This record gives sequence, structure tokens and C-alpha cells, in this order.
Amino acid sequence: MVRWQPGTSERLQAAALELFASNGYEQTTAAEIAQSVGLTERTFFRHFSDKREVLFHGQQLLVEAFLGGVAAAPDDAPPMELVAAALGAAEEFFPAERRDHSRLRQTVIDQNQALQERERHKLSVLAATLGDALRARGVAEPAATLAAESAATVFGVAFTQWIAPGEDRSIGEIERSVLAELRDLIAVAPVGNA
Amino acid sequence: MVRWQPGTSERLQAAALELFASNGYEQTTAAEIAQSVGLTERTFFRHFSDKREVLFHGQQLLVEAFLGGVAAAPDDAPPMELVAAALGAAEEFFPAERRDHSRLRQTVIDQNQALQERERHKLSVLAATLGDALRARGVAEPAATLAAESAATVFGVAFTQWIAPGEDRSIGEIERSVLAELRDLIAVAPVGNA
Repeated sequence: MVRWQPGTSERLQAAALELFASNGYEQTTAAEIAQSVGLTERTFFRHFSDKREVLFHGQQLLVEAFLGGVAAAPDDAPPMELVAAALGAAEEFFPAERRDHSRLRQTVIDQNQALQERERHKLSVLAATLGDALRARGVAEPAATLAAESAATVFGVAFTQWIAPGEDRSIGEIERSVLAELRDLIAVAPVGNA
Repeated sequence: MVRWQPGTSERLQAAALELFASNGYEQTTAAEIAQSVGLTERTFFRHFSDKREVLFHGQQLLVEAFLGGVAAAPDDAPPMELVAAALGAAEEFFPAERRDHSRLRQTVIDQNQALQERERHKLSVLAATLGDALRARGVAEPAATLAAESAATVFGVAFTQWIAPGEDRSIGEIERSVLAELRDLIAVAPVGNA
């Protein structure tokens, strides 16, 4: 019987993360990553266009998970219910067993400004794509943009809390708590004429 | 008597915008911009590090205006009052006479994906800087990040409305209306346990 082995992509990802974390992102080459799991540099580049892609591999999948959440919501769901459905998809995407991987990944990103910018850019792409999905569901402006940007903000803050040391709540539980904080915060905003 | 003339930077900016809008951003060179107002390419590069900088020249000033708004708020102002103070600073930064310039600039940015990304990046820098200012004023997390990101969202949506064809409300008035819409939207968000 053949013992189950994670796919080549996953092995390369895990190896890259270890090397980035221990030797530094800049100092690690694609060839070293491949070598550390007994593969060639050429194999590495069949799976990832560059070293940075190893860290941002899941981005498209995360965006699709959010869109799947929206698609599964009832036809007549109001904007913030669509947003809640999108946020709910993060729960499957970041199960508890992925938390250590996400923590290690974050330590790598925190050490490099270009990676931090890419990470921020990721959130703005998530917001833009979600906004498109809400407009396609008939949500008018500016509600679609406001709801989508708020969802990305809530997700970003919740994700940061989820990977904090000692945190053990699920990302969904944290998202709901952050959304409630946002609601309470905005509820007291002065919006009269200045 | 010497007639007042706008500074060299302003003349280069206005000329660049006209050329970008009529001939295309990609097709316009720094030398052509300089030439069109009787200056040399060398003078252009004393004022702007590259062609793109002409379009993003005011970014640091906008961020400073937002921070100035926060600094001027009373010591005991709650987070969303600090945010309202920051948003209020946009009113002086974008007076009615600047609207046509901003509209023309947007047509240039809309034609180029890299410029659109830079513009989105600008908003995330604004949010990050505002978050730092709120934390420095003692606002705790996640309120500081939520308030700062919401301010950037409201500003972004309000700015888009401000430059829309036929719009004649001030940016401050629009911001207050967008903030009220955000509040009403989030107020009905489902935040119970899923």
C-alpha cells in the first residue's frame, strides 16, 4: 500500500516557510527550497512563478471561498447578510489546524516590507472582488462598496487576532465579535452637519 | 509689477495632466511635459522623481491634513470623533475649485492599471497612518484599526462621488452622508452565533 504523501506544492510550501523563517526570506533561494525536499529548482518553477508566490498561493482560493459564501446566500439577502455569508466562508478556509502555518507565514511577512505591501494589496483585491459580486447581486452603490470594504476590514482584523499568541477562538467567532465592535463604534459616529 | 505665476511644480502638474488626458499616460514623456511649458527635462526631474509622481504629488499632504485633523480634536474625543475630525480635513484639501483637476486626474488613472493599484495603495497607506495616529492618542485595538479603515473607506467612496459628473455638494457634506449610510448598513449586520 502506498502511504499518503502531501502533494508537491504543499511540500514545497512547508519547506519554504521553514527556510524563510529560519534563514530569512531574502536569503532563501528557490533552489534551496527545492533541494531541501529532494526536488530540483526546475520542479519548483513548475509549481510557483517565483519565491514570493509560495506565500501568496492561497489568495485566489480565499477570494473564491468568499464569493462562494455570497453565492450560497438567499436571493433576497440584504447587503450585510451577504457580507456575513462571505465572512463565514473564512471559517472553512482557516480551520484550527492551519493556525500554526498562518502564524509562521506572518512572521516571515512581518520581516519584509514588500511582502507586507503585497499582503495589504491582497485585502484590497478581496474587497474589490467582493464589491463586484455584491453589485452583480443587485446591491446598489455606495452600499456595495461600503459593505465589501467593511468585510475586508473585519476579516483583516479578525485574521490578525486569530493568529495572535494564545488565541484559540475560531476565525468565525472572532469575525462576529469584530463586526459587532465595528457596529458599536460606527453607531456613535457624529454624522450631523459640521 | 510682477504678475503672480503659479510655481514650477504646479505648472508642470497642470501641463502633465493635459498631456496625459489628451495623448495618453504611457505615450507622454517627462521631456514633453517640460517642453510644453518651456522648461527642460532636467527641471522636471528636479521637481518629480518620475512621471508617475506628478499624479501622486499631493499624497503626503493629504495624509498630513488628516493627521492635522486628528491633532486638533479635543483630548477626550472618542475614536469616531477623531475620525470625523480627520475626514473634516479633506474639506479644505479638496475645495470646489479643485474638482475639475481631480476629475481630469481620475480619467488618466482609470486608463492605467498600475496607476489604479497605486491609487488603492494610497488609501491603504492613509488608513495605516491614521491607525497609528489613533493608537498614539490612546485608542485601543481593534477600535483604532476599525475606525481608521472605515475612515479611509468613507473617504474613498466620498471622493468618488465628489468627482462624479454633475455632483456639486462639498466633499465634507458627502463624507457625512456616506458615514451615515455606513452606520445604517452595519447597524443591521447579523452578528449572532452562526
